[in-house]
Amino acid sequence: MKQIAILGSTGSIGQSSLSILEEYPDRFAIASLAAGRNVDAAFDQCLRWRPRVVSLATAELADTLALRLREAGVTGIEVLHGAAGTVQVATLPEVDFVISAIVGVAGLEATYAAILAGKPVGLANKEAMVAAGEILTAAARERNVPLLPIDSEHNAIHQAMRAGEKREISRIWLTASGGPFRSLPLQDFDHITVEQALKHPTWVMGRRITIDSATMLNKGLEIIEACRLFDLPPSAVKVTVHPQSTVHSLVEYIDGSILAQISVTDMRLPILYALSYPERLPSKLTFDMAALGRLDFSPPDFARFPCLRLAYEAAERGGAHCIALNAADEVAVEAFLERAIPFPGIPRTIEDVLQATPESHPATIQEVLALDAQARDLAREVVAKTPTRSQPALHRR
Amino acid sequence: MKQIAILGSTGSIGQSSLSILEEYPDRFAIASLAAGRNVDAAFDQCLRWRPRVVSLATAELADTLALRLREAGVTGIEVLHGAAGTVQVATLPEVDFVISAIVGVAGLEATYAAILAGKPVGLANKEAMVAAGEILTAAARERNVPLLPIDSEHNAIHQAMRAGEKREISRIWLTASGGPFRSLPLQDFDHITVEQALKHPTWVMGRRITIDSATMLNKGLEIIEACRLFDLPPSAVKVTVHPQSTVHSLVEYIDGSILAQISVTDMRLPILYALSYPERLPSKLTFDMAALGRLDFSPPDFARFPCLRLAYEAAERGGAHCIALNAADEVAVEAFLERAIPFPGIPRTIEDVLQATPESHPATIQEVLALDAQARDLAREVVAKTPTRSQPALHRR
Repeated sequence: MKQIAILGSTGSIGQSSLSILEEYPDRFAIASLAAGRNVDAAFDQCLRWRPRVVSLATAELADTLALRLREAGVTGIEVLHGAAGTVQVATLPEVDFVISAIVGVAGLEATYAAILAGKPVGLANKEAMVAAGEILTAAARERNVPLLPIDSEHNAIHQAMRAGEKREISRIWLTASGGPFRSLPLQDFDHITVEQALKHPTWVMGRRITIDSATMLNKGLEIIEACRLFDLPPSAVKVTVHPQSTVHSLVEYIDGSILAQISVTDMRLPILYALSYPERLPSKLTFDMAALGRLDFSPPDFARFPCLRLAYEAAERGGAHCIALNAADEVAVEAFLERAIPFPGIPRTIEDVLQATPESHPATIQEVLALDAQARDLAREVVAKTPTRSQPALHRR
Repeated sequence: MKQIAILGSTGSIGQSSLSILEEYPDRFAIASLAAGRNVDAAFDQCLRWRPRVVSLATAELADTLALRLREAGVTGIEVLHGAAGTVQVATLPEVDFVISAIVGVAGLEATYAAILAGKPVGLANKEAMVAAGEILTAAARERNVPLLPIDSEHNAIHQAMRAGEKREISRIWLTASGGPFRSLPLQDFDHITVEQALKHPTWVMGRRITIDSATMLNKGLEIIEACRLFDLPPSAVKVTVHPQSTVHSLVEYIDGSILAQISVTDMRLPILYALSYPERLPSKLTFDMAALGRLDFSPPDFARFPCLRLAYEAAERGGAHCIALNAADEVAVEAFLERAIPFPGIPRTIEDVLQATPESHPATIQEVLALDAQARDLAREVVAKTPTRSQPALHRR
């Protein structure tokens, strides 16, 4: 019985993880859960999964949960809180596998702690890989700890890489749905509403990742994540726009063979793959290949999606610029969701922050977090100066 | 330096093999060649590749070649002939790898001899696998001799199978271009000309395989070949029609992941893969994934292509019925090319021969060849009774 810890259990990936774990009661058990602020969901998960340890964002929330568990007559669940609580959830001695699914850099410390403790990690937290990829992968390599990507794209790459040796890979192709604005005229981007941007054509996901998908910054983060996870230069990581999101990504070998992974668009599949690797377990997540219909592939439009270009630039410069890219985007997306800046304000904020970021290469998680905080402050300043609506006249100059 | 023997060196696959070998003069050398009746081509190949042994179909042809070589001042090439010559080409002590590319069952004995001699074999001769697959794979397994498929579909399966264990495969998907008559109305099949049938939409191939592609019997042979090569029941081997022939085939795993191999439609790529396996060598056979455009997948039409149904039936019954399927098809295709029977006469001939074939399971190559000869005689009888043109009235009954 594999004992699982989930960091971010009440989020989108956390819930998908628990949903797929339901199907394999003889294989997996939940050892510990780290949630954020959703006490109701955490309470329900405690009742259903009986973890030994659970952690919430604050002491107050933890107290509320502990009280409700007592009232419900549930014993044997230790309730912790804060960053230290999340680290404890990730490093319990009995934990065999950690699912790292806290969005943003919040999950970074705990993910690093899990690796240091020798726990295999299923990585759904791409921001951690973007901000501190070099530190995390170096630690994992040193301790021979498997890092298994749960992102559907990187999971596909992981699978397709099994058909050859690392040195035989010429490049990889990340597929991108292109988001809801793939064919929107460029001059209409100023008027994109929050509601329009939250409608993703194929995947149902969290709010930030959905907006990141609309700006293609999400793909940009994945480019950097791929460079770190698979030890590839940015020039070897390509993007192909594939609106059906059925081919999840591809690996191109030096002989010209390209290996692709195809499956339903359901995060439970990469989660199951990571949980059971190197084995594969039977699932019901199948479809009829013969009836697949039409698939399209086209080059990405760098003019429509400046976030892609910014991500390649950050990937080339590395260190502080990757941290700044992610931090600035998180602040900018929040501002967009609060209707404080227009949609094209997101790449503009990122570009301004990147330009103001001096080159530096952090060696510790603390330095990463400090650079992240600096970039966020900078992004907030930029956002504060951005008019709520773009003045179309500005673009016509 | 890997020493290569090519059985069928002047055929389509043989020529592609030599063409790709040109690119790797430091890796591969030609030890021996077996050709058929094309003395001119064999002569040119001898000049270019300087094999130690070459074999032609008959003593007369061998004498002609030997004379021409002497006249050209070429020494050190032993010229053999017939089935025994082909066997010798395949089993020379210095040969490290045998490319088995003689069309039809003619290459069967030599392929078997190569396996018995412990030579790794690159299999482009699907008829050998269809007629004697059980015998060949048993011998290869016993001696731990690698059989590497050169067929683009089975080569793709071989590559995609590396992403998991054999027991984790739920089924495989062979892609089929659907041939030139994929969307021809059924009532027009009687009037298909030889010229129309020889125009394949994506691959440039030999004559028989092109006609087999038009009837989809080719895919039928591949279904049987896949069952034998990969030890799968016919129910686990599916077909999806994919007109662009860019995805060469797919492996579906029990977790729902499907791994596909994508590449240019050029036989040199699977040949290179087989020659260099388990390594991959760099090649120029690449293309731009981002600009791939549109791919389509749809279920095959069993009404339009009765050869597919016949192949599944033969695969289920095994032994003599697989031999009969292949033999009857070879005779029927020849008759069609000689305009002796109409296009739908091909599946009708096969069906008649299958129905007249008693169940039996040969244990030796001699028994296979005897059953093959019987089936051919039977097919010739059927063909002789078939009117040159179908009477449309018959179909309207």
